[in-house]
Amino acid sequence: MRNLTMLTDLYQLTMMYGYDIAEKSDEVVVFDLFFRRNSGESAYAVAAGLEQAIEYIENLHFSDDDIAYLRDLGMFNADFLRKLENISFTGDIDAIPEGTVVFPNEPLIRVRAPIFEAQLIETALLNIVNHQTLIATKASRVVQAAQGDSVLEFGLRRAQGPDAGIYGARAAIIGGCDATSNVLAGKMFDIPVQGTHAHSWIMSFPTELDAFRAYAQAFPNSCLLLVDTYDTLRSGVPNAITVFKELRAKGHEPVGIRLDSGDLAYLSKKARKMLNEAGFPNAKVVASSDLDEDVIWDLKAQGAAVDVWGVGTAMITSKNCPALGGVYKLVAEEVNGELVPKIKISENAFKITNPGYKKVFRLYDKETHKAIADLITLDHETIDETKPLTIFDPVDTWKRMTLTNFKARQLLVPIYRRGRRVYELPSLMDIQEYTKKEMSTLWAEYKRLTKPHVYKVDLSNELYNLKNRLLKEHTFK
Amino acid sequence: MRNLTMLTDLYQLTMMYGYDIAEKSDEVVVFDLFFRRNSGESAYAVAAGLEQAIEYIENLHFSDDDIAYLRDLGMFNADFLRKLENISFTGDIDAIPEGTVVFPNEPLIRVRAPIFEAQLIETALLNIVNHQTLIATKASRVVQAAQGDSVLEFGLRRAQGPDAGIYGARAAIIGGCDATSNVLAGKMFDIPVQGTHAHSWIMSFPTELDAFRAYAQAFPNSCLLLVDTYDTLRSGVPNAITVFKELRAKGHEPVGIRLDSGDLAYLSKKARKMLNEAGFPNAKVVASSDLDEDVIWDLKAQGAAVDVWGVGTAMITSKNCPALGGVYKLVAEEVNGELVPKIKISENAFKITNPGYKKVFRLYDKETHKAIADLITLDHETIDETKPLTIFDPVDTWKRMTLTNFKARQLLVPIYRRGRRVYELPSLMDIQEYTKKEMSTLWAEYKRLTKPHVYKVDLSNELYNLKNRLLKEHTFK
Repeated sequence: MRNLTMLTDLYQLTMMYGYDIAEKSDEVVVFDLFFRRNSGESAYAVAAGLEQAIEYIENLHFSDDDIAYLRDLGMFNADFLRKLENISFTGDIDAIPEGTVVFPNEPLIRVRAPIFEAQLIETALLNIVNHQTLIATKASRVVQAAQGDSVLEFGLRRAQGPDAGIYGARAAIIGGCDATSNVLAGKMFDIPVQGTHAHSWIMSFPTELDAFRAYAQAFPNSCLLLVDTYDTLRSGVPNAITVFKELRAKGHEPVGIRLDSGDLAYLSKKARKMLNEAGFPNAKVVASSDLDEDVIWDLKAQGAAVDVWGVGTAMITSKNCPALGGVYKLVAEEVNGELVPKIKISENAFKITNPGYKKVFRLYDKETHKAIADLITLDHETIDETKPLTIFDPVDTWKRMTLTNFKARQLLVPIYRRGRRVYELPSLMDIQEYTKKEMSTLWAEYKRLTKPHVYKVDLSNELYNLKNRLLKEHTFK
Repeated sequence: MRNLTMLTDLYQLTMMYGYDIAEKSDEVVVFDLFFRRNSGESAYAVAAGLEQAIEYIENLHFSDDDIAYLRDLGMFNADFLRKLENISFTGDIDAIPEGTVVFPNEPLIRVRAPIFEAQLIETALLNIVNHQTLIATKASRVVQAAQGDSVLEFGLRRAQGPDAGIYGARAAIIGGCDATSNVLAGKMFDIPVQGTHAHSWIMSFPTELDAFRAYAQAFPNSCLLLVDTYDTLRSGVPNAITVFKELRAKGHEPVGIRLDSGDLAYLSKKARKMLNEAGFPNAKVVASSDLDEDVIWDLKAQGAAVDVWGVGTAMITSKNCPALGGVYKLVAEEVNGELVPKIKISENAFKITNPGYKKVFRLYDKETHKAIADLITLDHETIDETKPLTIFDPVDTWKRMTLTNFKARQLLVPIYRRGRRVYELPSLMDIQEYTKKEMSTLWAEYKRLTKPHVYKVDLSNELYNLKNRLLKEHTFK
């Protein structure tokens, strides 16, 4: 397994060194990893990346080479380098499991550990979780646009480097894609892989018909033909039908055709008709070519006769919004064994952090099983489901709502306790199943592709009051 | 070294299997890797990723594990899997060196090899070259906007996974950044790393002044303080000046301050004035906070007193355009030892490929040493610099130009010959130097951040005629 311990910003190491010099390395602190705004137009995100975050932490170890490199930087003393050599994670981590629907300001990961360790892991945790959550969310939107049609992940060649292809494919599966073209991702995560042939296959044979026949010979039972190399309706589809008939004569049923250019609404309807009339109503029409959730939505609205959507660049890069702005903020510090809440103030109100050691509840309607709102509370707080619960918007506090027939569920689960992992990793396909269930608890209003309704993430009374007290203390300083 | 042989689309393997069944595996073909459109608003790109492409090819090898996985897919026969076990690259590759300024439709990589090998490597080559070229280009734009100021790469936490951070930092250095915050990239590529401290450092001390003093104690000779945690001008800068004076009293000179929020034009000018008045005219002002080339350009136009720009998300993800659309197209096939040109036609004229085994010349003005135009020719063509050369636009063919006092330089260089590498890899800092020289050969008109002038990429007469002949043959079929 790859060791990513050095995958950190230099300032984590300079701070660790500074804490060491200031004799603060062992001070226990709490950091929250969260994002402040959803990506693009989405009203929700699908949490992803925890498995790789855990792998990273389990592999935390500076090699001799790493230490030699850091020594050569000439910034650190021998005592500090020795501490790095012996580092391992000894703290507590709680996290919201992968595949959970999450919202702004909710701690996706909560780290309680000596500052020397908690600081080191910031960059890699953010890198991993920001990326996979971004792509899982994008994939979830694409899958929704497909309205039950199958979606395939085809983006490897345009991904931002190998890992973006590999872990992007993983995240796309979490978001609901049925398969990926990425063979390495297929092997690593035991997920379905799919693929047939490219235009170059056709071009390497004297004629399109020769090329189709050769492909059918190699894959008589999984024959899917790309029909747009020369002329989709005048050459591609008729040639495919010829070969499909030949296949059937030999006792094989074809899988279908793929369209990769031109107007997919028009071409798919025409091709569908030709296939039906030729006696192949079960042959599938696969479409690819610069697709994203909006194009798929529009094509379906125009009655495109597409069964399977292959989505590349726009999904693997989350093209309209290629970064999730997750941050990792200090929220509490242990003083004499007691956690003292910390707040980061800012001129931008939305950048002010929620202080303290916190947890997150999701509140469900007991009748509909739909999510009503999320409530961030301090860690010691409980919710009594038998009593009415009044929640309020933390900005427009006059917006209030009283819940009666509700169920409360805690989203953060224990991952590490005193450096020991206490969490069993689910399989990727299990995470995908869980995501589907999660999505079904969201009203359609929150899932709408454009201008979705904003989901409520409120603060408990106690947390709200704490935040305001700390803010005032800072302001009147 | 990581083996990325399985980092491929499944359709490469199904095609290879098909070629094997059709007894075509050994047919020698030529593929060109090129992009059709520049990324975002740029009129040029900076080629990058060749070193990793070469590493990939040198490591080409399916492990026993890989073969077992592919066997379990149930799609391939034993004979094919045996061929995979023994695969290595035996062909020729030419490429345009990293750091070269390149333009649409120019083959960045030209592969001549048995189709069995040439097909396999498509996906990884595209993934690597698309990503690094994208980021090197973006970085080059950011560096231009900074007009001689230093630019630092700070994007790891928002990069699309670990590799996007690592190879994105590499590409940013090629594009002209002076350093990265990414420690692993620093170690892997021997490039400068930089970093100081975060807001959490300040928050973990009772007061900002305590935090500054502690940092100065740890780094007396490289003290750069983040001044915006509480109030930049009323608290941060005055406290920094206090600590700078204490440092100077002990014989150390401070490095400067960093601004990470608020209006950077206003704050930097005010902070600069305060530092100057306090006797620290050499203390640098570093600025970060959602910067990109446009923001930097505007801030400089407003007289921002910033010396160093730390750029994160927008550069590491190429946020306004997060994918370069590089493609890999079959352009020729060997028949009885002769290369027969191939063309891919399309309803979209710009998607029609340039057929044949080609090379690229850059034509320079002998007086100014500036690039005038690029000319794509067939491989056997030569250019006589002593005679006038007339070039013409391949679309608007009436746009003509005759060059007299010019120099022609071939851009593609040999990388592999019969599977043997014949190219020495330059160091990353040497590539950066070369990029600077490359950029100096471009007129400012092509480097303008918005609405730059389009650089001429023309076809030789012979190539133009070949393309039209092949197009007509297809059309009249």
